[in-house]
Amino acid sequence: MSYDNDNVFAKILRGEIPSTKLYEDAETLAFMDIMPRTDGHCLVIPKTPCRNALDATPDQLAAVIATAQKLAKAVMAGLDADGVVIEQYNEAPAGQEVFHLHFHVLPMREGVKMRAPGQMGDFDAIAGYAEKIRAALV
Amino acid sequence: MSYDNDNVFAKILRGEIPSTKLYEDAETLAFMDIMPRTDGHCLVIPKTPCRNALDATPDQLAAVIATAQKLAKAVMAGLDADGVVIEQYNEAPAGQEVFHLHFHVLPMREGVKMRAPGQMGDFDAIAGYAEKIRAALV
Repeated sequence: MSYDNDNVFAKILRGEIPSTKLYEDAETLAFMDIMPRTDGHCLVIPKTPCRNALDATPDQLAAVIATAQKLAKAVMAGLDADGVVIEQYNEAPAGQEVFHLHFHVLPMREGVKMRAPGQMGDFDAIAGYAEKIRAALV
Repeated sequence: MSYDNDNVFAKILRGEIPSTKLYEDAETLAFMDIMPRTDGHCLVIPKTPCRNALDATPDQLAAVIATAQKLAKAVMAGLDADGVVIEQYNEAPAGQEVFHLHFHVLPMREGVKMRAPGQMGDFDAIAGYAEKIRAALV
């Protein structure tokens, strides 16, 4: 299948729809998930197009995982998380909904399970987590 | 926390305990998970020590995600999977049980959920999936 230029993350990259940005460099962008499965759930994407890890280049994957690592460290420090899950879905039967490569970075707390997907988060709460994550980025 | 040289994956790397190997290169090793959450569930690890993505080097992460991509493509082709989930857990509250960096590569089928963790798989079935994955590696 080919890349769809009108997917939501392509629109975020073009500035056509807003996002709560956390970090960006030449190759990647990180921002908050608006349907957080845990408090502080964020996403990392490459700035260049690819559908998922099946058609990504090794360079795209290396850049995205490097930024995911930065975010993982930042949620541990900034949100005082007890652990972090990094997840990446390929194709709809694996849970992929937006067809631009993205890695989920999910702060985890002892004894707290992930929420079911698809539930819109509270905007103010997301903004608060974002501020703490940004402050902890090194 | 420091790296424990006696973790199960360190022992696999030293050849002290067996594994069903799928692929290896200078930097990484891929083998079957013995407690598969989906049919064909496999793991990718770096050959050099690190606990998880929080203390890994960017080079370790880039090498492991590149091999995870090879495996993801191989399970799609070799097992005729409908999708692939790539997961990586950091620290016990996030589900990490073996403290050597590892990425899970989970073949997914339409309408089939992951099994609960911690259930030992059938050895012959795992060997069968491994053969098909190896044959599809390019």
